[in-house]
Amino acid sequence: MSDVAIIMGSDSDWPVMEEAAKVLDQLGISYEADVVSAHRMPLEMVEFAQSAAGKGFKVIIAGAGGAAHLPGMVASLTTLPVIGVPVALKNLDGMDSLLSIVQMPAGVPVATVGVGNAKNAALLAARILGISDSAISAKVADALKEINTEAKAKGANLNSRRGQKTGF
Amino acid sequence: MSDVAIIMGSDSDWPVMEEAAKVLDQLGISYEADVVSAHRMPLEMVEFAQSAAGKGFKVIIAGAGGAAHLPGMVASLTTLPVIGVPVALKNLDGMDSLLSIVQMPAGVPVATVGVGNAKNAALLAARILGISDSAISAKVADALKEINTEAKAKGANLNSRRGQKTGF
Amino acid sequence: MSDVAIIMGSDSDWPVMEEAAKVLDQLGISYEADVVSAHRMPLEMVEFAQSAAGKGFKVIIAGAGGAAHLPGMVASLTTLPVIGVPVALKNLDGMDSLLSIVQMPAGVPVATVGVGNAKNAALLAARILGISDSAISAKVADALKEINTEAKAKGANLNSRRGQKTGF
Amino acid sequence: MSDVAIIMGSDSDWPVMEEAAKVLDQLGISYEADVVSAHRMPLEMVEFAQSAAGKGFKVIIAGAGGAAHLPGMVASLTTLPVIGVPVALKNLDGMDSLLSIVQMPAGVPVATVGVGNAKNAALLAARILGISDSAISAKVADALKEINTEAKAKGANLNSRRGQKTGF
Amino acid sequence: MSDVAIIMGSDSDWPVMEEAAKVLDQLGISYEADVVSAHRMPLEMVEFAQSAAGKGFKVIIAGAGGAAHLPGMVASLTTLPVIGVPVALKNLDGMDSLLSIVQMPAGVPVATVGVGNAKNAALLAARILGISDSAISAKVADALKEINTEAKAKGANLNSRRGQKTGF
Amino acid sequence: MSDVAIIMGSDSDWPVMEEAAKVLDQLGISYEADVVSAHRMPLEMVEFAQSAAGKGFKVIIAGAGGAAHLPGMVASLTTLPVIGVPVALKNLDGMDSLLSIVQMPAGVPVATVGVGNAKNAALLAARILGISDSAISAKVADALKEINTEAKAKGANLNSRRGQKTGF
Amino acid sequence: MSDVAIIMGSDSDWPVMEEAAKVLDQLGISYEADVVSAHRMPLEMVEFAQSAAGKGFKVIIAGAGGAAHLPGMVASLTTLPVIGVPVALKNLDGMDSLLSIVQMPAGVPVATVGVGNAKNAALLAARILGISDSAISAKVADALKEINTEAKAKGANLNSRRGQKTGF
Amino acid sequence: MSDVAIIMGSDSDWPVMEEAAKVLDQLGISYEADVVSAHRMPLEMVEFAQSAAGKGFKVIIAGAGGAAHLPGMVASLTTLPVIGVPVALKNLDGMDSLLSIVQMPAGVPVATVGVGNAKNAALLAARILGISDSAISAKVADALKEINTEAKAKGANLNSRRGQKTGF
Repeated sequence: MSDVAIIMGSDSDWPVMEEAAKVLDQLGISYEADVVSAHRMPLEMVEFAQSAAGKGFKVIIAGAGGAAHLPGMVASLTTLPVIGVPVALKNLDGMDSLLSIVQMPAGVPVATVGVGNAKNAALLAARILGISDSAISAKVADALKEINTEAKAKGANLNSRRGQKTGF
Repeated sequence: MSDVAIIMGSDSDWPVMEEAAKVLDQLGISYEADVVSAHRMPLEMVEFAQSAAGKGFKVIIAGAGGAAHLPGMVASLTTLPVIGVPVALKNLDGMDSLLSIVQMPAGVPVATVGVGNAKNAALLAARILGISDSAISAKVADALKEINTEAKAKGANLNSRRGQKTGF
Repeated sequence: MSDVAIIMGSDSDWPVMEEAAKVLDQLGISYEADVVSAHRMPLEMVEFAQSAAGKGFKVIIAGAGGAAHLPGMVASLTTLPVIGVPVALKNLDGMDSLLSIVQMPAGVPVATVGVGNAKNAALLAARILGISDSAISAKVADALKEINTEAKAKGANLNSRRGQKTGF
Repeated sequence: MSDVAIIMGSDSDWPVMEEAAKVLDQLGISYEADVVSAHRMPLEMVEFAQSAAGKGFKVIIAGAGGAAHLPGMVASLTTLPVIGVPVALKNLDGMDSLLSIVQMPAGVPVATVGVGNAKNAALLAARILGISDSAISAKVADALKEINTEAKAKGANLNSRRGQKTGF
Repeated sequence: MSDVAIIMGSDSDWPVMEEAAKVLDQLGISYEADVVSAHRMPLEMVEFAQSAAGKGFKVIIAGAGGAAHLPGMVASLTTLPVIGVPVALKNLDGMDSLLSIVQMPAGVPVATVGVGNAKNAALLAARILGISDSAISAKVADALKEINTEAKAKGANLNSRRGQKTGF
Repeated sequence: MSDVAIIMGSDSDWPVMEEAAKVLDQLGISYEADVVSAHRMPLEMVEFAQSAAGKGFKVIIAGAGGAAHLPGMVASLTTLPVIGVPVALKNLDGMDSLLSIVQMPAGVPVATVGVGNAKNAALLAARILGISDSAISAKVADALKEINTEAKAKGANLNSRRGQKTGF
Repeated sequence: MSDVAIIMGSDSDWPVMEEAAKVLDQLGISYEADVVSAHRMPLEMVEFAQSAAGKGFKVIIAGAGGAAHLPGMVASLTTLPVIGVPVALKNLDGMDSLLSIVQMPAGVPVATVGVGNAKNAALLAARILGISDSAISAKVADALKEINTEAKAKGANLNSRRGQKTGF
Repeated sequence: MSDVAIIMGSDSDWPVMEEAAKVLDQLGISYEADVVSAHRMPLEMVEFAQSAAGKGFKVIIAGAGGAAHLPGMVASLTTLPVIGVPVALKNLDGMDSLLSIVQMPAGVPVATVGVGNAKNAALLAARILGISDSAISAKVADALKEINTEAKAKGANLNSRRGQKTGF
């Protein structure tokens, strides 16, 4: 029983979606990942979506590209929050994927993150789980501190490379 | 038993989709029309799509707006040709609807027509049915002649209004 | 102490954001609503974001238009999930608002919904709260059933208006 | 006498359009392919379009890029269904090709598929031919099963690579 | 025998294209106007284009909207310069019309003007005719002077309304 | 001798550009406004741009729409900072105006503000003048305080209308 | 004294604009080419534009990218027809260049060709010159025949490669 | 104490922003550069923005990509002029960055330059500083002369390469 399900339309989406898995690993959040294609596996998709809550999943992360129907269709068949990751295809820079995911009709929301930003999908899942799990919430806070520290180190490094003594 | 099924995500799409019905009426092609929402009626949508061929439908016309998943999802669940009509919502001029319908992954095609162009969806259905039904094919030819005659009459009318004696 | 904070850049966003409030009212989820402008009230925005979790808020819904910085800035200052609602301005149909909200850098996610779709922001908040509150989760399920019933009624109504005996 | 004509504006479109030919080969559907340019061969294009039905073609697949006029012009001169494949040029990612093909005026439909998606053009032709040819229809069903099997295998493979025992 | 042919896909384009006629009237350039639809009158369009030079036309102005094929198709069938006027339809603000007209393949140029800017099409025709007709060229110069005078008068008027004594 | 020159391509831009004048009036910054069209008054535009610094202007605000060349051309002929205001025309929502103004080549900058946002052009001018004039700088600070106060009042008003006792 | 002036904002545009020169060479049309930058050489640009007709130029071809002001500014200062070639920069695929060139205000037309399509600019110049020079007009006709022959040869070649005996 | 602060969201923006530093070096304008991320360092960003004027900075150049909030947020917390540089990310060609920076609400202006055009940001800063520092203003004039000389040399070079004796 895992907290998060990471699904994607094809294993070719894995290089993008793997970033979500890595973040969840770092945060110690359990997950499973699988190919669930809205168009190639519609009945399996329905079954997955209907049974996801019962299997104990709490959040679903769904990545898809082009006419990206997976996140929205799953959202119509579950009460769990669904996070959509627009995957950019060869053309159109992910604009088709983004609009296909985010422009859902009133009644069935998908929590959309930026094009190709599976990392943020995982962090959003962590924030969601953190509402009722203070350990996760603390890890989200730690992650914010970490990127703060990193950003400042990058500034220091930039200044050091440039021979500029101090930052602001 | 009708040849064409006209489906749409909401009855608010009817003013757009009604144009398809009118054309089919003119061409004497039988059809049924109903609301089948991918997001609000996902299971009914699956059932409709799976049973459509068995019910005798030969072509499906599906109109939808925004994250327009209906045409593509139905196409994944039937072997019938599915014609998608992008319906423009309040914002984005139908660009979201168009991309959500036309950018289907390889394996599951949707025959997409122009934004709001339900008339052309019906005429495309007629062309498709006309392959094996010469009476319909003849009506398609008649319709092409008719718009030809109309266009020429419009030119004559324009010239007459302008007091220009003859067209080219 | 309320579960959801609805914030917006200006009270001119209220006609859009009010839809979120109505849905939360229907679902019996407590909320507060206020103007918190990233650009006109930056320090108050920081204070709000930093104190939101401590005040008991569990989810933040933030609506903004144009260079819509409110959702992303708040997300950088809290560990709570932040839902962004792109509000369309007079020009550009909300495309600026959408991209300003959804294209957040890795590290700070915003759960973005469709342009002007505050209703879905509220429903997403409900799904999120429903993870640890089965009463809310049940209401989300009810809401899905309700829009299912409504959609079917619309289909029946359409058929009745058209004198077509039965739907599919 | 072949069932499908594959035409394209230039042989530089062949690497894209060849995918349609391959699918038709796999499905055992007869076809011929040729260069028919709307702009470089307008009279030959007219002749082709006018004679296509008489030669026994049942469906026309037309690929074109940029100001892509071939599919629409052919459609205006035949009663056969015409499937348009937008081919992306060096700039604009095929958006020009897509709009030039899909936004046909009421009266002359083109069945448009996704940018560069010649595979789907062939599958759409198969669905169309399948209406009156149950052998082809069965092959379309097989193709849907095949991509279903493939997708599930990809999921199993993904899980195997990740050392995750089972999918959902 | 007229110098300029103004053609358009439908008489509904006349309110836009009429501006071209008015400018030609003002400049004393002879023209004829007619409906010539690429999609509804393809054979008449071919005939028109092939015979245009022989009839004495020197420049063709063609207005069209959506999948706007008229200017490009005519250009492929004549050696005369063809000026294309993108007419905006209800959706997409003329972006489809513009791209369908301007993105012609190498070999067949269309001189494209701004969306809905039939006035400029006429002025461009005048510039073209002015190369070998100094009277027309002088009128183009006059027209430039006139808009210069008008613009300065508008500035004076603005200053007068504002009670600001002098412009720069 | 005024500090700011407000120029625009036509007096039809005045309803947009007037907002800049009003803000400058409020801030007590002297300005003159006039029509200077890059395309209708190119020589006057050159003369204006070349003499602007000599006349004592310190900042130029230039509004223009469509192929908006005024701000960039003026910037190429002066060393003063030029602020460009993209004015939306009937079509394309100002996207053409924005890109024509902001995408200047390296060497000649234009300080671009949002579509139709002449108010911000004036405030930017004030910030620029404020660098060497602490009275103006103080007024900019006051203006920021004022919009802060207004925003908070709007929040209070919203809460009062909704019968919600206090904001956050 | 040459018939055509080819101007461009920078010599980095030469790889694109050279195609125009090649076509003019092939057609035996005299031309000169030079760098004339609207933003880096505004006064030289004015001088060039004002003197172009007097120097005997009949048509001006102007290539530019980004905020592409060169074609429009030159057009405002001459009565000659100006052909604009949008050159794509690193970002935005030439959409900025296209809109900056084509969306000219009423009064000052630019004959715009496709993004990067300098070849068509030369062919358009030839069509324009051909109005009063039947030798050039004949060469334009030859060029149309040539691309027709080439296109048919490509089709034959495609069929030969595929072992398909005959084209349509 | 430096005149200009160059800030950016990450050191990955440095290759773009470095161009601003180089130009300021050439013009002898003092500056400091540092990483200040709106989303990863929100409190440091607030502190930087609030203290920038006090530290003696006169102009702030801020580069950011995607949901680019840095320039606008800093502008809301200072009275100094803020110049925004949209940095293009992997997808969307900087359109998201541009809109996120330029479409600021009335009250808080950002002086936006072209996508990736940090050079122009520096030159704009120089123009701004030049208002009250004639030495800088003279350098801006020199820089305009220099690009003028360079552009003419490029034209001469182009003509020399082509064996064309003289430019226009």
